[in-house]
Amino acid sequence: MTQPTSPAAHLLSIADLSIEDVLSLLDRAAEFKQGATPKIPSGLVAINMFFENSTRTMTSFQMAEHRLGMKVLDFNPDHSSLTKGESLYDSVRTVDAIGAHVAVIRHHQNAYYDELLETGHLRLSIVNGGDGSGQHPSQCLLDLLTIREEFGHFEGLKVAISGDIAHSRVARSNAEVLTRLGATVYFTGPHEWMDESITAWGTVARLDEILPQLDVCMMLRVQHERFDAGPDFKASDYLAAYGLTEERAARMPKHAIIMHPAPVNRGCELADALMEAPQSRIFPQMTNGVLVRMAMLERVLLNNSAAQQQKALAK
Amino acid sequence: MTQPTSPAAHLLSIADLSIEDVLSLLDRAAEFKQGATPKIPSGLVAINMFFENSTRTMTSFQMAEHRLGMKVLDFNPDHSSLTKGESLYDSVRTVDAIGAHVAVIRHHQNAYYDELLETGHLRLSIVNGGDGSGQHPSQCLLDLLTIREEFGHFEGLKVAISGDIAHSRVARSNAEVLTRLGATVYFTGPHEWMDESITAWGTVARLDEILPQLDVCMMLRVQHERFDAGPDFKASDYLAAYGLTEERAARMPKHAIIMHPAPVNRGCELADALMEAPQSRIFPQMTNGVLVRMAMLERVLLNNSAAQQQKALAK
Amino acid sequence: MTQPTSPAAHLLSIADLSIEDVLSLLDRAAEFKQGATPKIPSGLVAINMFFENSTRTMTSFQMAEHRLGMKVLDFNPDHSSLTKGESLYDSVRTVDAIGAHVAVIRHHQNAYYDELLETGHLRLSIVNGGDGSGQHPSQCLLDLLTIREEFGHFEGLKVAISGDIAHSRVARSNAEVLTRLGATVYFTGPHEWMDESITAWGTVARLDEILPQLDVCMMLRVQHERFDAGPDFKASDYLAAYGLTEERAARMPKHAIIMHPAPVNRGCELADALMEAPQSRIFPQMTNGVLVRMAMLERVLLNNSAAQQQKALAK
Repeated sequence: MTQPTSPAAHLLSIADLSIEDVLSLLDRAAEFKQGATPKIPSGLVAINMFFENSTRTMTSFQMAEHRLGMKVLDFNPDHSSLTKGESLYDSVRTVDAIGAHVAVIRHHQNAYYDELLETGHLRLSIVNGGDGSGQHPSQCLLDLLTIREEFGHFEGLKVAISGDIAHSRVARSNAEVLTRLGATVYFTGPHEWMDESITAWGTVARLDEILPQLDVCMMLRVQHERFDAGPDFKASDYLAAYGLTEERAARMPKHAIIMHPAPVNRGCELADALMEAPQSRIFPQMTNGVLVRMAMLERVLLNNSAAQQQKALAK
Repeated sequence: MTQPTSPAAHLLSIADLSIEDVLSLLDRAAEFKQGATPKIPSGLVAINMFFENSTRTMTSFQMAEHRLGMKVLDFNPDHSSLTKGESLYDSVRTVDAIGAHVAVIRHHQNAYYDELLETGHLRLSIVNGGDGSGQHPSQCLLDLLTIREEFGHFEGLKVAISGDIAHSRVARSNAEVLTRLGATVYFTGPHEWMDESITAWGTVARLDEILPQLDVCMMLRVQHERFDAGPDFKASDYLAAYGLTEERAARMPKHAIIMHPAPVNRGCELADALMEAPQSRIFPQMTNGVLVRMAMLERVLLNNSAAQQQKALAK
Repeated sequence: MTQPTSPAAHLLSIADLSIEDVLSLLDRAAEFKQGATPKIPSGLVAINMFFENSTRTMTSFQMAEHRLGMKVLDFNPDHSSLTKGESLYDSVRTVDAIGAHVAVIRHHQNAYYDELLETGHLRLSIVNGGDGSGQHPSQCLLDLLTIREEFGHFEGLKVAISGDIAHSRVARSNAEVLTRLGATVYFTGPHEWMDESITAWGTVARLDEILPQLDVCMMLRVQHERFDAGPDFKASDYLAAYGLTEERAARMPKHAIIMHPAPVNRGCELADALMEAPQSRIFPQMTNGVLVRMAMLERVLLNNSAAQQQKALAK
């Protein structure tokens, strides 16, 4: 049983990656967009273990795996031994024993991967598909790729992140890495949805004030639970107070773009008509998602000595 | 973003197809039965989005996609963003952005595809796997293929469609296209399950009267909900009054065949012993289902310019 | 419609297999471990029909199918016509008509396959993935492979099977075949979990007494239902009374190994620390599971004349 020799055999959080790592993943994703051929042998096996619903992210990973020539297994937690009380470690150790080379895992527990790597017995690579309210590195990289495609650089860009900052997987990682890359980050939205541990990476502001200076306006999803929170919450009120209306969008610079991690509540955080407006990059973000996931998977597998050794077995 | 240039990049309803289109799809399905090689490049990506249960239809489409050398992604609505309130349009637009070349969709809403095609932004092809009580073109084509295999033509054939006409996806499309093809259609079953907008395509009759003249006796499924409708409904009563019993089957001409879209309620609309009787074509219909679905998918992809352009990316 | 000519086109129970059959399957699994190439054409189609939850077994079969170069379809009973009241026979006959070459089936009904084979109309092969409390041949073969890898033979080995004998799929098959192969089997665990129809294959004993003589200590899972049986049941009490503690493990011979079909209740039938201890073969069992399933699938497909004829169609 060989342990992956390098921490680079896993991709768990953006904070673990150096600026060089981040840029090299973006470069590789851009190469895939131009039709580059994967550097891994075909027939390696990926398993997607999503313990939280996310069709978008899971389908995007499946597509990335297929385009890398991998075999794709899906692990359905509804049908799993977890309903028999098995621990996450034993489930992952099982798919490792069965021969998967990489597991893409989404799990509600913050930093679930620390526990998985503790015994040192796993041979497969782990790619974090989102954990608790912590990290969501593939979303972060696809945002960065979309921004770099638009502006060619990050230095000096002004980026607003707007909405439920405290409960967002996206806000923290994006703020941290954008700041490292030289951008300036603003946080907007209801006061009670701010979180100092995140807003420390930038400046809390009112959307109406900063709109004319923005390069990127990144709206976050208002969680559906909010809608069920009683008769107090109205989507149209939220839109008027904090959302990106057509009027507000018109006040942004001409070159500015609109982003959103999706799924979007049309008419809540974003005006319906902006979803596919010329300045919207929402669907191009999804296209880029496949490309950064290809780059992530290729990277961890190239750094996984067990996967490299097992390639002779793969068909 | 290229829009499919031709309406033939989608296959939504039988009514949209000319007689030439229908016969050419049947010809192509027959070629696939003889082992013909697909005309599309391998590695194109299909996604199956079934918002209503249908193992039979979905598995048949998956098989068709595999035999065309496609990559197959499944979209599980239980795990989807739809539970987060996302619209069908945004879900389909997402899988389009992710790079799927064709989406096979089953959805309870009548003509759901009209709304999808409205913006003109979709690049992928849509194949209708069944909508509301409207259309189910692949079922219709497999029925036609099975009939043509048997008789070599449609002109002058006498076909009974029997059962819950009003709630059937099959009855309307089949009646319309069989009439166009020169067959005569009879509708039988309980009076309250008739629907003038459908029976206008033929003649309402009593099964017992027309049996001796039939070439094809097509039984429809009694919906399971009927069984739960209280103590009034008994399968054996239905069989005696309206179903195809062995006695009734014996009164059909020797060359006549029995068809059913399945799943069958054995002992309700059809006597148990007829399911695999010599004159039954019920399981051969399922075999033909894969072949017509291959022809449908190949057709839309050959007419989809985006899929043709993207082939260089496919592996 | 060709019926498989040989009973060897199915693999339903270990009791059906001669000692020569068993050893030849183990030999073939060992060859696959060394990287042997499958003898079946690539592109044959497997469908996995699991009517009971079992991620471990199903994922292992999927992996085996992929490594044999097969196309893999999954049949999700939640979405199936079974919810519309379709019989198991009609569901399996459907996937047969659709063109699957082998169905791996897990179903709660004892010997469900007898009914499936009765009509003689099925062309596909059936591999039993577990039925009722009856048979689970792939689990049995992976246990045998693991034991033979360790000791090179079965003759004279002393094997304890410990736990809920009466409700175990594993106990009966393993006891029967191990005895045929010349091993001696002991049954340990709570008196009320014994079953004479199984223990007749060996000797009921107390774990503490036989520990020093054992070559293999095979612990069974305490079914989760037992934990819910009220405040009477405590995992730690069970461990102390009947489970394999570290103290007990220390009293086994140095060469003895620990096995478990998994998932394991850590701290109930097995001490937490033994799960990945040097003498544990629990995760290697899972690795072997893929190899014996490859051997099983290859065997039935080589004996299925329909699959052999259809190979020209496969891509």
